[in-house]
Amino acid sequence: MDLSSLSYASRFDHVSGSAIREIFKVIAQPGMISFAGGNPSLSALPDQEVSRLASEVLAQNGKWILQYGATEGYPPFLESLKSYLKTHLGIQTPSVLPVTGSTQAMDLLCKALINPGDRIIVENPSFLGNLQCMKLYEAELVPVDSDDDGMDPDHLEYLIKTTRPKMIYTIPTFQNPTGRTLSLERRKRVAELANQYGVIVAEDDPYRDLRYRGESLPPIKTFDENGWVVFMGSFSKVISPGLRVGYMAGDAGIIRKCTIGKQSTDVHTANLNQAIVDQFLRQDLLAPHVEQIVSAYRAQCDLMLSHLSRFPEGVSFTRPDGGLFIWAELPEGMSAKEILDQSIQEGVAFVPGTHFYAFGGHENTLRLNFSGSTADLIEVGMERLENLIRKNLNK
Amino acid sequence: MDLSSLSYASRFDHVSGSAIREIFKVIAQPGMISFAGGNPSLSALPDQEVSRLASEVLAQNGKWILQYGATEGYPPFLESLKSYLKTHLGIQTPSVLPVTGSTQAMDLLCKALINPGDRIIVENPSFLGNLQCMKLYEAELVPVDSDDDGMDPDHLEYLIKTTRPKMIYTIPTFQNPTGRTLSLERRKRVAELANQYGVIVAEDDPYRDLRYRGESLPPIKTFDENGWVVFMGSFSKVISPGLRVGYMAGDAGIIRKCTIGKQSTDVHTANLNQAIVDQFLRQDLLAPHVEQIVSAYRAQCDLMLSHLSRFPEGVSFTRPDGGLFIWAELPEGMSAKEILDQSIQEGVAFVPGTHFYAFGGHENTLRLNFSGSTADLIEVGMERLENLIRKNLNK
Repeated sequence: MDLSSLSYASRFDHVSGSAIREIFKVIAQPGMISFAGGNPSLSALPDQEVSRLASEVLAQNGKWILQYGATEGYPPFLESLKSYLKTHLGIQTPSVLPVTGSTQAMDLLCKALINPGDRIIVENPSFLGNLQCMKLYEAELVPVDSDDDGMDPDHLEYLIKTTRPKMIYTIPTFQNPTGRTLSLERRKRVAELANQYGVIVAEDDPYRDLRYRGESLPPIKTFDENGWVVFMGSFSKVISPGLRVGYMAGDAGIIRKCTIGKQSTDVHTANLNQAIVDQFLRQDLLAPHVEQIVSAYRAQCDLMLSHLSRFPEGVSFTRPDGGLFIWAELPEGMSAKEILDQSIQEGVAFVPGTHFYAFGGHENTLRLNFSGSTADLIEVGMERLENLIRKNLNK
Repeated sequence: MDLSSLSYASRFDHVSGSAIREIFKVIAQPGMISFAGGNPSLSALPDQEVSRLASEVLAQNGKWILQYGATEGYPPFLESLKSYLKTHLGIQTPSVLPVTGSTQAMDLLCKALINPGDRIIVENPSFLGNLQCMKLYEAELVPVDSDDDGMDPDHLEYLIKTTRPKMIYTIPTFQNPTGRTLSLERRKRVAELANQYGVIVAEDDPYRDLRYRGESLPPIKTFDENGWVVFMGSFSKVISPGLRVGYMAGDAGIIRKCTIGKQSTDVHTANLNQAIVDQFLRQDLLAPHVEQIVSAYRAQCDLMLSHLSRFPEGVSFTRPDGGLFIWAELPEGMSAKEILDQSIQEGVAFVPGTHFYAFGGHENTLRLNFSGSTADLIEVGMERLENLIRKNLNK
C-alpha cells in the first residue's frame, strides 16, 4: 500500500513549522549577514574551557558519566544548581529538574498540564518555538496586551476571569522577540493573580543575565507563595546552546509529573553535558564569562540602536536593557516579508515579526538580533537595511 | 490559592511511573547485586576513548559544536550515520534523524502519528519505557501473541484485521524483556502485513549488535517496500547510554514530521554528543569495541543460564542469542514481587515481569539482566536467588 494513505496526528493540523526553517536555510548561505537567529556570538562560546572541563570530569568520573543516569538529574549538578538558584536568583528550596535545553521544560510542562482545548495566555508576539510547542498540545492561545513594561496586568486579570486559562506563558526579562522587560511591580502582580485565580505561570527566563544597563529584577517565582509559578532557566545564552542544558524549578508535585514525562521522552539529559555545566558553576567560571560577553553584546546592541535611530521616520523600535533582540515596526503598510526578500538579495537576513504572533498579522514588524554578528557586520548590514527601507518608502 | 486545586493533564490518568523507580532506588543501596537495570557493564564504557574524542572534536570544530545546531542533526554525523546504516544494516537511502536516545524516537513517532484512542499492537511483555510513552499519547495497546520466534504473524494479521491499528511496536532482536528474536521469515511477513494493510511498524532495535551466537538477521526495514517501517537505533548499548544518542530512519515525510516535533521538544540533540559518536564511526572504533564487550557479555549470559539450569523444576527461562536479558517464569502461583521483597533483604535485585505487561498480571515472571554485573556477582546473586526460590517452594 502506498504511504500516501498515512494520516498524521491531528495535533499537527495547524503546525507547519516551515516558515522560519526556510529562512534559516537561506541564512546558511556563505557571506550572509544574519540578524535572524538567537545565536550567541561564536567568540562568546567557551570551546577551550569546555574541552578542559570535559577532560576533567571524564577523568574523575567517566564511567558513571557514560552510564545511564537518573531522570531526576546528575547528582553533583543538582547540588550546584540548587545552590546557584538560591544565591544567584533568590529561588529557595524548589524541586529542580535538569532538562535538555529549556525548550524541553516547556514541552514537559505542557505534557504534564495541558489537555486539548485548555487555554494558555501568551504575550503577543512571543517565542515561536514555544508557541509551536503549545499548539502541538492543542492549547488555545489567548494573547494578552503588552507595553514597554511587559504584560498589562489589568488586561491579564480580565482574561483570567473571562477565559479561565490553565497557564500563563511569559518571558519576563528581555522578552523574545520584543526585548521588553516586565517591571518589578508587575512581577509581583502576576504572582498574585496566579495565586488568586489558581493559574500556572510558566516563567521562561533565559536572557536575564545578559543585562547591559539598569538593575537586575527578581524572578516572578520569588513572589510565588503557593507553587503556582514554574521557573524555566537555560545555560544556552551564557555558556553554550549546543550543549542543550537547561532546568525547571518549582513545586515538587509538578516537577515529579514532568519527571515521569521525561522518563519516556529522553530518559535523562546527557550526564557529560550536565557535568560540564556543573563545573562551570563549581569553579565560579560563569560570572566572569558572563561579564565578558555582556560587555561585547552591549556594544553590539548600542551600535544597532544607533543605526536604527538614523532610519527614516515611521520606523519605530524597542530599546532593550539586555538580551539578544531589538523589535522594529516599519511604516504601516510596508511588508517585512517583502523587505526580507529584497534584503536577502543584498546578503542581509532577519525574521519577519508576523511569525511570532499567535495568530499572524502585524506584517510590518521584524526582529533583529545583534549577538550573532560582529560590529563590522552590523555596520554593513544595517546600512543596507536602511537604504532598502528608504527605497521602499519612496516607491 | 492552594496548589491542591491543580489538575494534571488526563494523559497521566493511567500512568504512575513509580513501580520501577522504587526498585531503582533500592538498587542504589551500596552492596546491592543488581540484575534489574538494562545497564552496560561499567568496564564496557569507553571513558578514555570518549575523553580523547571530545578533546579532538572540540579542538577541530569547538565553536560550531557549542553553537545551536540544526534540528535535522550535526552534518558530519548525518553523513557517517547514513553510511553506517547502508553498510552495517543494509538500510539504504532513508531519511535519518539523530535523536536524544532512541526513547526520543518513540516519543516523536507517537507525537507525529498517534491520536488518543489509536490502537498500537505491542508484544506482551514489552519495554516498559515505551509502553509508558504510548500510554501518555493515550494509545490503546493491543497485545499480540509471541513464541520463541517472536510475534506470531497469524495472530498479528488477525489483530490488524479486527482492530485496525495505527502502529505495530516491536523489538525484533533480543527483545526486552524476553530476549527473544523474530525469525527471518517472520520479519518478511511483518513487513508484508504492514504494507498490505497500511500499518506503521516501529522497529526498535538497540540490542542487535550484542549477538553471542548465530547469524545476524536483517532488520524488518530492509523488507519494507513503501516506507511503512520506521527503524529506531541506539548507541546506548554499544558505546554509552549516558551520551543519549540514537537515531530514527524511515520515510522522508514521517521523518520530517518528527523533525518538526523535535524543534519544540529539545531543538536538537547536543552537538558534542553527536560529534563523539560520529568519530566512533569514522575512526572505525565501533566494531572492535563491540567485539570486546560481546565476548564479556556472552560469558556473563552463559554463566547466568548455567545457574538457571540448576534452579528447581517448575522454573522456566529463555535462552537468548544476545542482548542483555533473560526472562524467567516461576512456578504457577509464586509471586515474583514477593521473591523480590525477600531477595532485596539478601542484597539481590531484579524486575518483576508484571511491569512489562500492558495490562499487568503474570505475577510469576521476572526479568534478569546479566550485563550490569560481574561473573563473581552473578555467582553469588544467582545462588541466593536459587535458594530463595527453593525455600518458597517448600513453604
